Amino acid sequence: MFDLIAFDADDTLWHNEILYTTTQDKYKQLLSEYLSAELIDQKLYETEMRNLDYFGYGIKGFTLSMIETAIELTAGRIQGWQIQQIIELAKKMLQAPIQLLPHVKETVAHLAAIYPLMVITKGDLLDQETKIARSGLAGYFTHIEIVSEKNQATYQTLLDRYNLEPRRFLMIGNSLRSDILPVVALGARAIHIPYHTTWAHEAVADDYTSQDYFELEHIGQLPALLDRLNYR
Amino acid sequence: MFDLIAFDADDTLWHNEILYTTTQDKYKQLLSEYLSAELIDQKLYETEMRNLDYFGYGIKGFTLSMIETAIELTAGRIQGWQIQQIIELAKKMLQAPIQLLPHVKETVAHLAAIYPLMVITKGDLLDQETKIARSGLAGYFTHIEIVSEKNQATYQTLLDRYNLEPRRFLMIGNSLRSDILPVVALGARAIHIPYHTTWAHEAVADDYTSQDYFELEHIGQLPALLDRLNYR
Repeated sequence: MFDLIAFDADDTLWHNEILYTTTQDKYKQLLSEYLSAELIDQKLYETEMRNLDYFGYGIKGFTLSMIETAIELTAGRIQGWQIQQIIELAKKMLQAPIQLLPHVKETVAHLAAIYPLMVITKGDLLDQETKIARSGLAGYFTHIEIVSEKNQATYQTLLDRYNLEPRRFLMIGNSLRSDILPVVALGARAIHIPYHTTWAHEAVADDYTSQDYFELEHIGQLPALLDRLNYR
Repeated sequence: MFDLIAFDADDTLWHNEILYTTTQDKYKQLLSEYLSAELIDQKLYETEMRNLDYFGYGIKGFTLSMIETAIELTAGRIQGWQIQQIIELAKKMLQAPIQLLPHVKETVAHLAAIYPLMVITKGDLLDQETKIARSGLAGYFTHIEIVSEKNQATYQTLLDRYNLEPRRFLMIGNSLRSDILPVVALGARAIHIPYHTTWAHEAVADDYTSQDYFELEHIGQLPALLDRLNYR
Protein backbone atom coordinates (compact mmCIF):
# COMPACT_ATOMS: atom_id res chain seq x y z
CA MET A 1 0.00 0.00 0.00
CA PHE A 2 2.87 2.41 0.74
CA ASP A 3 6.10 2.86 -1.22
CA LEU A 4 7.74 4.65 1.68
CA ILE A 5 6.95 5.24 5.34
CA ALA A 6 8.46 8.31 6.99
CA PHE A 7 8.81 9.02 10.70
CA ASP A 8 9.30 12.24 12.56
CA ALA A 9 12.09 11.73 15.14
CA ASP A 10 11.78 14.07 18.16
CA ASP A 11 8.94 12.90 20.45
CA THR A 12 7.92 10.28 17.88
CA LEU A 13 10.91 7.92 18.05
CA TRP A 14 12.56 9.31 21.19
CA HIS A 15 11.91 11.76 24.02
CA ASN A 16 12.88 15.33 23.15
CA GLU A 17 10.51 17.97 24.51
CA ILE A 18 11.24 16.73 28.04
CA LEU A 19 14.88 17.72 27.46
CA TYR A 20 13.81 21.28 26.69
CA THR A 21 11.37 21.52 29.60
CA THR A 22 13.95 20.10 32.03
CA THR A 23 16.55 22.58 30.77
CA GLN A 24 14.05 25.41 30.98
CA ASP A 25 13.33 24.44 34.61
CA LYS A 26 17.04 24.70 35.43
CA TYR A 27 17.18 28.00 33.57
CA LYS A 28 14.31 29.38 35.63
CA GLN A 29 16.05 28.17 38.79
CA LEU A 30 19.19 30.02 37.68
CA LEU A 31 17.23 33.24 37.22
CA SER A 32 14.96 32.81 40.25
CA GLU A 33 16.81 35.49 42.23
CA TYR A 34 15.71 38.02 39.61
CA LEU A 35 12.31 36.94 38.33
CA SER A 36 9.22 34.75 38.58
CA ALA A 37 9.05 31.49 36.64
CA GLU A 38 5.89 32.56 34.77
CA LEU A 39 7.43 35.74 33.45
CA ILE A 40 10.54 33.86 32.32
CA ASP A 41 8.48 31.23 30.46
CA GLN A 42 6.46 33.88 28.71
CA LYS A 43 9.39 36.10 27.73
CA LEU A 44 11.55 33.19 26.60
CA TYR A 45 8.79 31.99 24.28
CA GLU A 46 8.44 35.50 22.85
CA THR A 47 12.19 35.69 22.25
CA GLU A 48 12.22 32.26 20.58
CA MET A 49 9.42 33.23 18.22
CA ARG A 50 11.09 36.56 17.40
CA ASN A 51 14.41 34.76 16.71
CA LEU A 52 12.99 31.86 14.70
CA ASP A 53 13.70 33.49 11.33
CA TYR A 54 17.30 34.09 12.40
CA PHE A 55 18.17 30.90 14.23
CA GLY A 56 15.67 28.27 13.07
CA TYR A 57 14.85 25.26 15.27
CA GLY A 58 17.21 23.43 17.57
CA ILE A 59 19.30 23.67 20.70
CA LYS A 60 21.75 26.34 19.51
CA GLY A 61 19.00 28.84 18.72
CA PHE A 62 17.17 27.94 21.94
CA THR A 63 20.37 28.67 23.87
CA LEU A 64 20.95 32.03 22.20
CA SER A 65 17.33 32.91 22.99
CA MET A 66 17.79 31.86 26.63
CA ILE A 67 20.84 34.13 26.89
CA GLU A 68 19.09 37.05 25.20
CA THR A 69 16.03 36.69 27.44
CA ALA A 70 18.16 36.51 30.58
CA ILE A 71 19.98 39.72 29.66
CA GLU A 72 16.77 41.50 28.77
CA LEU A 73 14.82 40.42 31.86
CA THR A 74 17.63 41.26 34.26
CA ALA A 75 18.35 44.57 32.47
CA GLY A 76 21.91 43.33 31.95
CA ARG A 77 22.50 42.44 35.61
CA ILE A 78 22.95 38.72 34.92
CA GLN A 79 26.50 37.62 35.72
CA GLY A 80 28.99 36.11 33.27
CA TRP A 81 29.18 32.84 35.21
CA GLN A 82 25.40 32.51 35.00
CA ILE A 83 25.48 32.90 31.22
CA GLN A 84 28.23 30.29 31.11
CA GLN A 85 25.87 27.99 33.04
CA ILE A 86 23.28 28.47 30.30
CA ILE A 87 25.87 27.41 27.70
CA GLU A 88 26.72 24.37 29.83
CA LEU A 89 23.01 23.45 29.89
CA ALA A 90 23.10 23.50 26.08
CA LYS A 91 26.11 21.22 25.95
CA LYS A 92 24.39 18.78 28.29
CA MET A 93 21.34 18.76 26.01
CA LEU A 94 23.55 18.07 22.99
CA GLN A 95 25.07 15.07 24.75
CA ALA A 96 21.97 13.74 26.46
CA PRO A 97 21.44 9.99 26.01
CA ILE A 98 18.71 9.11 23.52
CA GLN A 99 15.68 7.64 25.28
CA LEU A 100 13.57 5.74 22.80
CA LEU A 101 9.83 5.83 23.33
CA PRO A 102 8.14 2.51 24.24
CA HIS A 103 7.73 -0.03 21.38
CA VAL A 104 9.89 2.03 18.99
CA LYS A 105 12.78 -0.37 18.59
CA GLU A 106 10.71 -3.48 17.75
CA THR A 107 8.17 -1.60 15.64
CA VAL A 108 10.79 0.10 13.49
CA ALA A 109 12.74 -3.17 13.11
CA HIS A 110 9.53 -4.97 12.10
CA LEU A 111 8.49 -2.36 9.53
CA ALA A 112 12.00 -1.99 8.08
CA ALA A 113 11.74 -5.61 6.90
CA ILE A 114 8.62 -4.71 4.87
CA TYR A 115 8.93 -1.06 3.76
CA PRO A 116 11.69 1.42 2.97
CA LEU A 117 11.71 3.78 5.95
CA MET A 118 12.73 7.43 6.19
CA VAL A 119 13.32 9.92 8.99
CA ILE A 120 12.16 13.50 8.39
CA THR A 121 13.19 15.77 11.22
CA LYS A 122 13.87 19.45 11.76
CA GLY A 123 16.47 21.15 13.95
CA ASP A 124 20.23 21.60 14.00
CA LEU A 125 21.92 19.46 11.35
CA LEU A 126 24.77 18.03 13.42
CA ASP A 127 22.60 17.49 16.50
CA GLN A 128 19.94 15.58 14.57
CA GLU A 129 22.58 13.47 12.80
CA THR A 130 24.33 12.48 16.01
CA LYS A 131 21.00 11.70 17.69
CA ILE A 132 20.05 9.34 14.86
CA ALA A 133 23.49 7.73 15.13
CA ARG A 134 23.24 7.40 18.92
CA SER A 135 19.68 6.06 18.77
CA GLY A 136 20.84 2.74 17.35
CA LEU A 137 18.08 3.01 14.74
CA ALA A 138 20.08 4.44 11.82
CA GLY A 139 20.42 1.04 10.13
CA TYR A 140 16.65 0.70 9.76
CA PHE A 141 16.25 3.88 7.73
CA THR A 142 16.95 4.01 4.01
CA HIS A 143 16.80 7.81 3.90
CA ILE A 144 17.36 10.52 6.47
CA GLU A 145 16.17 14.05 5.75
CA ILE A 146 16.94 16.92 8.09
CA VAL A 147 14.98 20.00 7.10
CA SER A 148 14.73 23.57 8.37
CA GLU A 149 10.92 23.66 8.36
CA LYS A 150 8.18 21.04 7.91
CA ASN A 151 5.54 22.66 5.79
CA GLN A 152 3.71 21.72 2.61
CA ALA A 153 6.56 22.97 0.39
CA THR A 154 9.06 20.82 2.26
CA TYR A 155 6.98 17.67 1.86
CA GLN A 156 6.35 18.46 -1.81
CA THR A 157 10.11 18.76 -2.37
CA LEU A 158 10.65 15.37 -0.71
CA LEU A 159 7.84 13.70 -2.70
CA ASP A 160 9.49 15.04 -5.88
CA ARG A 161 12.99 14.07 -4.82
CA TYR A 162 12.01 10.46 -4.14
CA ASN A 163 9.53 10.33 -7.00
CA LEU A 164 6.64 9.37 -4.70
CA GLU A 165 2.93 9.39 -5.38
CA PRO A 166 1.30 11.22 -2.45
CA ARG A 167 -1.23 8.49 -1.68
CA ARG A 168 1.57 5.92 -1.48
CA PHE A 169 3.51 8.00 1.07
CA LEU A 170 2.80 7.72 4.79
CA MET A 171 4.10 10.12 7.46
CA ILE A 172 4.00 9.32 11.16
CA GLY A 173 4.60 11.91 13.86
CA ASN A 174 3.52 13.62 17.05
CA SER A 175 2.98 17.14 15.72
CA LEU A 176 -0.28 17.93 13.93
CA ARG A 177 1.25 21.16 12.68
CA SER A 178 4.50 19.74 11.32
CA ASP A 179 3.90 16.06 10.64
CA ILE A 180 0.22 15.64 9.82
CA LEU A 181 -1.63 18.66 8.39
CA PRO A 182 0.85 19.62 5.62
CA VAL A 183 1.10 15.96 4.58
CA VAL A 184 -2.67 15.45 4.45
CA ALA A 185 -2.99 18.70 2.48
CA LEU A 186 -0.86 17.14 -0.27
CA GLY A 187 -3.08 14.08 -0.50
CA ALA A 188 -0.60 11.87 1.31
CA ARG A 189 -1.44 9.73 4.34
CA ALA A 190 -0.55 10.48 7.94
CA ILE A 191 -0.78 8.88 11.36
CA HIS A 192 -0.74 11.08 14.43
CA ILE A 193 0.76 9.66 17.62
CA PRO A 194 0.47 12.42 20.25
CA TYR A 195 3.25 12.92 22.78
CA HIS A 196 2.19 13.88 26.28
CA THR A 197 3.82 17.33 26.03
CA THR A 198 3.61 19.65 23.03
CA TRP A 199 5.72 22.78 22.58
CA ALA A 200 3.36 25.76 22.33
CA HIS A 201 4.68 26.56 18.84
CA GLU A 202 3.65 23.11 17.56
CA ALA A 203 0.17 23.19 19.06
CA VAL A 204 -2.89 23.71 16.88
CA ALA A 205 -6.40 24.57 17.98
CA ASP A 206 -8.02 21.79 19.98
CA ASP A 207 -11.14 21.77 17.87
CA TYR A 208 -9.25 20.69 14.76
CA THR A 209 -10.71 17.38 13.65
CA SER A 210 -10.27 15.51 10.44
CA GLN A 211 -11.10 12.23 8.83
CA ASP A 212 -7.94 12.54 6.79
CA TYR A 213 -5.52 10.92 9.20
CA PHE A 214 -5.42 8.20 11.82
CA GLU A 215 -4.54 8.62 15.45
CA LEU A 216 -2.78 6.04 17.61
CA GLU A 217 -1.92 5.99 21.30
CA HIS A 218 1.54 4.54 20.78
CA ILE A 219 3.76 3.38 17.95
CA GLY A 220 3.36 -0.28 18.94
CA GLN A 221 -0.15 -0.13 17.45
CA LEU A 222 1.23 0.78 14.03
CA PRO A 223 1.78 -2.68 12.46
CA ALA A 224 -1.79 -3.74 13.22
CA LEU A 225 -3.19 -0.55 11.68
CA LEU A 226 -1.06 -1.01 8.56
CA ASP A 227 -2.29 -4.61 8.27
CA ARG A 228 -5.89 -3.42 8.50
CA LEU A 229 -5.27 -0.79 5.80
CA ASN A 230 -3.69 -3.37 3.51
CA TYR A 231 -6.48 -5.92 3.79
CA ARG A 232 -9.60 -3.89 3.50
CA MET B 1 32.71 14.39 -19.48
CA PHE B 2 30.90 15.03 -16.20
CA ASP B 3 27.43 13.87 -15.16
CA LEU B 4 27.26 16.42 -12.39
CA ILE B 5 29.28 19.44 -11.33
CA ALA B 6 29.13 20.45 -7.68
CA PHE B 7 30.15 23.76 -6.14
CA ASP B 8 31.05 24.67 -2.62
CA ALA B 9 29.19 27.88 -1.68
CA ASP B 10 30.97 29.93 1.01
CA ASP B 11 34.02 31.70 -0.48
CA THR B 12 33.52 29.84 -3.76
CA LEU B 13 30.27 31.41 -4.97
CA TRP B 14 30.06 34.29 -2.50
CA HIS B 15 32.12 36.06 0.15
CA ASN B 16 31.83 34.45 3.58
CA GLU B 17 35.07 34.38 5.57
CA ILE B 18 35.20 38.18 5.37
CA LEU B 19 31.90 38.23 7.31
CA TYR B 20 33.53 36.23 10.11
CA THR B 21 36.73 38.29 10.19
CA THR B 22 34.76 41.57 10.17
CA THR B 23 32.58 40.31 13.01
CA GLN B 24 35.63 39.08 14.90
CA ASP B 25 37.19 42.56 14.55
CA LYS B 26 34.10 44.13 16.10
CA TYR B 27 34.17 41.47 18.84
CA LYS B 28 37.80 42.30 19.65
CA GLN B 29 36.87 46.00 19.73
CA LEU B 30 34.10 45.18 22.19
CA LEU B 31 36.54 43.34 24.46
CA SER B 32 39.45 45.74 23.98
CA GLU B 33 39.01 47.24 27.45
CA TYR B 34 39.81 43.82 28.92
CA LEU B 35 42.30 42.13 26.59
CA SER B 36 44.67 42.25 23.64
CA ALA B 37 43.45 41.35 20.16
CA GLU B 38 46.02 38.55 19.75
CA LEU B 39 44.95 36.76 22.92
CA ILE B 40 41.29 37.02 21.92
CA ASP B 41 41.97 35.55 18.44
CA GLN B 42 43.92 32.67 19.91
CA LYS B 43 41.45 31.84 22.68
CA LEU B 44 38.42 32.16 20.41
CA TYR B 45 39.93 29.70 17.96
CA GLU B 46 40.66 27.27 20.81
CA THR B 47 37.06 27.56 22.03
CA GLU B 48 35.70 27.04 18.51
CA MET B 49 37.76 23.87 18.05
CA ARG B 50 36.76 22.56 21.48
CA ASN B 51 33.07 23.23 20.72
CA LEU B 52 33.04 21.88 17.15
CA ASP B 53 31.75 18.46 18.20
CA TYR B 54 28.92 20.14 20.10
CA PHE B 55 27.92 22.96 17.80
CA GLY B 56 29.22 22.05 14.33
CA TYR B 57 29.94 24.76 11.77
CA GLY B 58 28.05 27.99 11.29
CA ILE B 59 27.17 31.31 12.79
CA LYS B 60 25.18 30.04 15.79
CA GLY B 61 28.05 27.91 17.08
CA PHE B 62 30.53 30.71 16.34
CA THR B 63 28.37 33.06 18.43
CA LEU B 64 28.12 30.68 21.37
CA SER B 65 31.92 30.29 21.22
CA MET B 66 32.37 34.08 21.15
CA ILE B 67 30.19 34.39 24.26
CA GLU B 68 31.98 31.56 26.06
CA THR B 69 35.41 33.01 25.23
CA ALA B 70 34.38 36.48 26.38
CA ILE B 71 33.19 35.13 29.73
CA GLU B 72 36.30 33.02 30.21
CA LEU B 73 38.80 35.72 29.22
CA THR B 74 37.16 38.39 31.40
CA ALA B 75 36.74 35.96 34.30
CA GLY B 76 33.02 36.69 34.15
CA ARG B 77 33.40 40.47 34.30
CA ILE B 78 31.87 41.01 30.85
CA GLN B 79 28.60 42.92 31.10
CA GLY B 80 25.18 41.70 29.99
CA TRP B 81 24.82 44.47 27.41
CA GLN B 82 28.16 43.46 25.88
CA ILE B 83 26.98 39.87 25.47
CA GLN B 84 23.79 41.19 23.91
CA GLN B 85 26.01 43.07 21.43
CA ILE B 86 27.65 39.77 20.49
CA ILE B 87 24.21 38.29 19.78
CA GLU B 88 23.37 41.36 17.68
CA LEU B 89 26.58 40.78 15.68
CA ALA B 90 25.32 37.26 14.96
CA LYS B 91 21.96 38.51 13.76
CA LYS B 92 23.70 41.00 11.46
CA MET B 93 25.77 38.14 10.01
CA LEU B 94 22.64 36.07 9.42
CA GLN B 95 21.05 38.93 7.49
CA ALA B 96 24.13 40.17 5.63
CA PRO B 97 23.57 40.71 1.91
CA ILE B 98 25.08 38.00 -0.29
CA GLN B 99 28.06 39.32 -2.21
CA LEU B 100 28.76 37.08 -5.17
CA LEU B 101 32.39 36.63 -6.15
CA PRO B 102 33.44 38.04 -9.57
CA HIS B 103 32.32 36.02 -12.64
CA VAL B 104 30.07 33.74 -10.55
CA LYS B 105 26.70 34.75 -11.95
CA GLU B 106 27.60 34.38 -15.65
CA THR B 107 29.73 31.25 -15.15
CA VAL B 108 27.05 29.41 -13.20
CA ALA B 109 24.36 30.48 -15.69
CA HIS B 110 26.55 29.28 -18.58
CA LEU B 111 27.34 25.90 -17.02
CA ALA B 112 23.75 25.30 -15.88
CA ALA B 113 22.75 25.18 -19.54
CA ILE B 114 25.20 22.28 -20.11
CA TYR B 115 25.46 20.28 -16.87
CA PRO B 116 23.26 19.50 -13.88
CA LEU B 117 24.74 21.58 -11.06
CA MET B 118 24.75 20.98 -7.32
CA VAL B 119 25.69 23.00 -4.25
CA ILE B 120 27.42 21.14 -1.42
CA THR B 121 27.91 23.34 1.61
CA LYS B 122 28.33 22.94 5.35
CA GLY B 123 27.04 25.10 8.19
CA ASP B 124 23.70 25.91 9.78
CA LEU B 125 20.81 24.47 7.78
CA LEU B 126 18.49 27.49 7.77
CA ASP B 127 21.33 29.99 7.24
CA GLN B 128 22.70 28.13 4.23
CA GLU B 129 19.22 27.71 2.74
CA THR B 130 18.38 31.39 3.05
CA LYS B 131 21.79 32.38 1.62
CA ILE B 132 21.19 30.22 -1.46
CA ALA B 133 17.74 31.76 -1.82
CA ARG B 134 19.07 35.30 -1.40
CA SER B 135 21.98 34.70 -3.80
CA GLY B 136 19.68 34.64 -6.80
CA LEU B 137 21.46 31.46 -7.97
CA ALA B 138 19.03 28.84 -6.62
CA GLY B 139 17.39 28.32 -10.01
CA TYR B 140 20.67 27.18 -11.57
CA PHE B 141 21.16 24.28 -9.17
CA THR B 142 19.37 20.97 -9.62
CA HIS B 143 20.39 19.74 -6.17
CA ILE B 144 21.33 21.46 -2.93
CA GLU B 145 23.05 19.48 -0.20
CA ILE B 146 23.76 21.01 3.19
CA VAL B 147 25.99 18.72 5.23
CA SER B 148 27.46 18.81 8.71
CA GLU B 149 30.99 17.87 7.59
CA LYS B 150 32.74 17.56 4.21
CA ASN B 151 34.89 14.49 4.45
CA GLN B 152 35.36 11.38 2.35
CA ALA B 153 32.36 9.64 3.94
CA THR B 154 30.12 12.61 3.13
CA TYR B 155 31.13 12.64 -0.54
CA GLN B 156 30.76 8.86 -0.76
CA THR B 157 27.21 9.15 0.58
CA LEU B 158 26.41 11.80 -2.05
CA LEU B 159 27.96 9.76 -4.89
CA ASP B 160 25.80 6.83 -3.79
CA ARG B 161 22.66 8.93 -3.37
CA TYR B 162 22.91 10.37 -6.90
CA ASN B 163 24.26 7.17 -8.39
CA LEU B 164 27.40 8.88 -9.70
CA GLU B 165 30.63 7.35 -10.97
CA PRO B 166 33.47 9.14 -9.18
CA ARG B 167 35.38 10.03 -12.35
CA ARG B 168 32.26 11.64 -13.81
CA PHE B 169 31.76 13.86 -10.75
CA LEU B 170 33.52 17.22 -10.45
CA MET B 171 33.74 19.30 -7.28
CA ILE B 172 34.79 22.95 -7.27
CA GLY B 173 35.71 24.84 -4.12
CA ASN B 174 38.11 27.05 -2.22
CA SER B 175 39.05 24.68 0.60
CA LEU B 176 41.66 21.99 -0.06
CA ARG B 177 40.63 20.28 3.15
CA SER B 178 36.87 20.21 2.57
CA ASP B 179 36.33 20.50 -1.18
CA ILE B 180 39.36 18.97 -2.88
CA LEU B 181 41.33 16.33 -0.96
CA PRO B 182 38.42 14.08 0.13
CA VAL B 183 36.99 14.24 -3.42
CA VAL B 184 40.29 13.36 -5.07
CA ALA B 185 40.76 10.51 -2.57
CA LEU B 186 37.55 8.93 -3.91
CA GLY B 187 38.80 9.05 -7.51
CA ALA B 188 36.55 11.98 -8.39
CA ARG B 189 37.75 15.22 -10.01
CA ALA B 190 38.26 18.54 -8.31
CA ILE B 191 39.13 22.12 -9.15
CA HIS B 192 40.59 24.34 -6.47
CA ILE B 193 39.87 28.07 -6.63
CA PRO B 194 41.62 29.64 -3.63
CA TYR B 195 39.98 32.49 -1.76
CA HIS B 196 42.27 35.20 -0.47
CA THR B 197 41.53 34.37 3.18
CA THR B 198 41.33 30.87 4.63
CA TRP B 199 40.00 30.07 8.10
CA ALA B 200 42.82 28.39 10.06
CA HIS B 201 40.71 25.24 10.50
CA GLU B 202 40.42 24.80 6.71
CA ALA B 203 44.11 25.34 6.01
CA VAL B 204 46.37 22.43 5.06
CA ALA B 205 50.15 22.38 4.99
CA ASP B 206 51.56 24.67 2.32
CA ASP B 207 53.77 21.99 0.88
CA TYR B 208 50.83 19.86 -0.16
CA THR B 209 51.00 19.45 -3.92
CA SER B 210 49.17 17.09 -6.18
CA GLN B 211 48.64 16.34 -9.82
CA ASP B 212 45.18 15.12 -8.97
CA TYR B 213 43.32 18.39 -9.20
CA PHE B 214 43.40 21.63 -11.15
CA GLU B 215 43.82 25.07 -9.72
CA LEU B 216 42.26 28.26 -11.09
CA GLU B 217 42.60 31.90 -10.09
CA HIS B 218 38.92 32.66 -10.47
CA ILE B 219 35.69 30.92 -11.43
CA GLY B 220 35.51 32.80 -14.76
CA GLN B 221 38.29 30.52 -16.04
CA LEU B 222 36.18 27.43 -15.47
CA PRO B 223 34.33 27.10 -18.82
CA ALA B 224 37.61 27.26 -20.78
CA LEU B 225 39.18 24.56 -18.58
CA LEU B 226 36.14 22.32 -18.98
CA ASP B 227 36.30 22.81 -22.76
CA ARG B 228 39.97 21.82 -22.76
CA LEU B 229 39.20 18.69 -20.70
CA ASN B 230 36.39 17.72 -23.06
CA TYR B 231 38.41 18.08 -26.27
CA ARG B 232 41.69 16.50 -25.47
